[in-house]
Amino acid sequence: MPPTSFSCSFLTLQPRFNSYVNPIFRSLSFQLSSSPLPFNAHFSSIRLRSSLSRPAETDSPTGGRSGALTPGPSVGADVQKIDVNPPKGTRDFPPEDMRLRNWLFNHFKEVSRLYGFEEVDYPVLESEALFTRKAGEEIKDQLYCFEDRGNRRVALRPELTPSLARLVIQKGKSVPLPIKWFTVGQCWRYERMTRGRRREHYQWNMDIIGVPGVMAEAELLSSIVTLFKRIGITESDVGFKVSSRKVLQEVLNCYSVPEHLFGKVCVIIDKIEKIPVDEIKKELKAVGLSQEAVQKLLQVLSVKSLEELEERLGSSGEAIADLKQLFSLAEKIGFSKWLQFDASVVRGLAYYTGIVFEGFDREGKLRAICGGGRYDHLFSTFGADDIAACGFGFGDAVIVELLKEKGLFLVNLYYYSYAPQHFCLGSCFFSFADFA
Amino acid sequence: MPPTSFSCSFLTLQPRFNSYVNPIFRSLSFQLSSSPLPFNAHFSSIRLRSSLSRPAETDSPTGGRSGALTPGPSVGADVQKIDVNPPKGTRDFPPEDMRLRNWLFNHFKEVSRLYGFEEVDYPVLESEALFTRKAGEEIKDQLYCFEDRGNRRVALRPELTPSLARLVIQKGKSVPLPIKWFTVGQCWRYERMTRGRRREHYQWNMDIIGVPGVMAEAELLSSIVTLFKRIGITESDVGFKVSSRKVLQEVLNCYSVPEHLFGKVCVIIDKIEKIPVDEIKKELKAVGLSQEAVQKLLQVLSVKSLEELEERLGSSGEAIADLKQLFSLAEKIGFSKWLQFDASVVRGLAYYTGIVFEGFDREGKLRAICGGGRYDHLFSTFGADDIAACGFGFGDAVIVELLKEKGLFLVNLYYYSYAPQHFCLGSCFFSFADFA
Repeated sequence: MPPTSFSCSFLTLQPRFNSYVNPIFRSLSFQLSSSPLPFNAHFSSIRLRSSLSRPAETDSPTGGRSGALTPGPSVGADVQKIDVNPPKGTRDFPPEDMRLRNWLFNHFKEVSRLYGFEEVDYPVLESEALFTRKAGEEIKDQLYCFEDRGNRRVALRPELTPSLARLVIQKGKSVPLPIKWFTVGQCWRYERMTRGRRREHYQWNMDIIGVPGVMAEAELLSSIVTLFKRIGITESDVGFKVSSRKVLQEVLNCYSVPEHLFGKVCVIIDKIEKIPVDEIKKELKAVGLSQEAVQKLLQVLSVKSLEELEERLGSSGEAIADLKQLFSLAEKIGFSKWLQFDASVVRGLAYYTGIVFEGFDREGKLRAICGGGRYDHLFSTFGADDIAACGFGFGDAVIVELLKEKGLFLVNLYYYSYAPQHFCLGSCFFSFADFA
Repeated sequence: MPPTSFSCSFLTLQPRFNSYVNPIFRSLSFQLSSSPLPFNAHFSSIRLRSSLSRPAETDSPTGGRSGALTPGPSVGADVQKIDVNPPKGTRDFPPEDMRLRNWLFNHFKEVSRLYGFEEVDYPVLESEALFTRKAGEEIKDQLYCFEDRGNRRVALRPELTPSLARLVIQKGKSVPLPIKWFTVGQCWRYERMTRGRRREHYQWNMDIIGVPGVMAEAELLSSIVTLFKRIGITESDVGFKVSSRKVLQEVLNCYSVPEHLFGKVCVIIDKIEKIPVDEIKKELKAVGLSQEAVQKLLQVLSVKSLEELEERLGSSGEAIADLKQLFSLAEKIGFSKWLQFDASVVRGLAYYTGIVFEGFDREGKLRAICGGGRYDHLFSTFGADDIAACGFGFGDAVIVELLKEKGLFLVNLYYYSYAPQHFCLGSCFFSFADFA
């Protein structure tokens, strides 16, 4: 009997897996094909010709199921075959992938609880207005939005922070500060699909509302480091680029750039690794920055050490003070090796105001693993009074890519549930025949 | 200081809760209002006037956050206040509700695993065609459906079984039978909202694919009974009405009613508790049943014991054999007190073919708690060969209603996380001041 092919969308199992075929499986007299199953076949023609299926109508009336008893259409010309794949950009979680998802999410949840955060959730479907209020963002063009049957404009959430802000404002005075909430929730963006980037992903968010000092950012970073350590990722695999939006602000203040241009400048700066520097310069001039301001700004953004930044900006500003304090806390807590100052990290989201950080793969193969920062003025954009706040988002897709890169899947993730044996990295091999 | 009001959408906490106010809470100099917060206020005017929020711009540059550093709009005439409520028919899960959700879902998951089921999940967003293939169903008018940016017709899933069938067909021969899968997933239906019925709910599904005998149904029922016992629900609170679609079929066969009318008859019969019996009779005649067939059918549907059914149908049919075997298995396994035969239970879903069951509140206050049955011919409607299968769906909304009715919330669900005390039913009171 030829081995069956076993495909999996969340992680790719190794080919040698295919050689474990369940004896029960054999006994069911499936007609195994010698060619691998067409996992990506658009319209599958798979036939489950089990001896269990559709007994003839002449079966004993007291045994098995009889086809005579239902109005189900006979399999004929009028039955359209269904597309067995999930919609483009989405995925199924068969048992082998669900185990990985549970393993990862349980780590997210346990780490959050270790740090005293409480779990919350919001509707996957939110009012479109929640996400489109700040015009001009990329997110607007990527919304899965539609009108419901009651003519409400709704959208599948592209991120979790606006819902968090909504709920915090709704709860109002009934919830004392600080609020420490976490969520693991699905988010949707209609975008071009690249490696590891689907149109939906799960995101782990932790947010601290009501703490103005960088101790809050330190706690967030420490949580992520704890997560990394638990799943086998070290500081030689991953680091955090840390900066503060106040660095930009202080440079712009030097050149008397009006405050309302700050957001626009951030959006341009965020493209620094994607488009040529001349293009960046042109765009910065176009919004009204002088030649000198542009030059100074780009110089400062290339700074990679806090000492050099201090030389350039002086030591009296908030940017330097915040960053120094954060690095000192990291030293005390014991994760300073994970951090590096990098002035160029400004992060795409418009609502960050202070410290920003981004988790990156030190080999440079993957895009950002996670990102976060302080957003002290988000609430006022929703018409409420501001509250000091910071948080991060951590997607499920890139971390799985990284674990694959590092060969770091744990034993239980390779457990092959359908077979009475199981296989794990390091060539251990247990027989579970007793349970079969 | 007046107590604050503490509202909760998932369960309603008792008023006496309001008197526990966190000392930390007091120290933050919130301006507590003497009137309860308008939880349902459409546009909230809640102001978070914490001493932590938005320090004056004259603050020490090295302490706190300064409002001068961001482009956030000042709270003025141009800032539209946001609707702080989730979209109609959806809900947030603040920590106190999330605890209840986790408590319930963990029971679902643990029970499923105890019975050897593996967890799976499918996209919340599926192709619309997956749900609209069988025309004429209520579900079609209740779909949250839209066109995505790639012009695909997609829908938020209204139920989980079509996705299950899709994935089983996709996996094809790579998965040996029997398949035992469970899911706890969110489903969406745009319908009129009544008590405990929102437009989204979570559903616990367990399905067994590849087992033709009623042992599978017995295992499903046993799982649900285990769940009930774990959360404090007894057989005097809840029972299962059990029948088989084959009962109807056998009556229709007696009167030579053509097979293709079976589905239509089921849909009419399912309305038996909702519309007057004369209306039912009229509809049955309209699809072509004789006066005599209608009378016999309604007589049989009123039968409440298996003995009487046997007298009417004879003992040679599959319906009687299946039901007898199921009741005998229930006796052996030890949950027969939960079951009662009720011929009128046919269940709304078109794809059931054999045993059907419905969990009901014995006080008759609530609608069906859960329901399931055998669907041996679902796969052929998707163009694949049929496989014997059965499963059930168990929603989160009605069970929470029932727990409220019975006063059965457990201690940990009343834990008031924001206060350093906690309160439990039975007037225990612990101080957690050490952790504050």
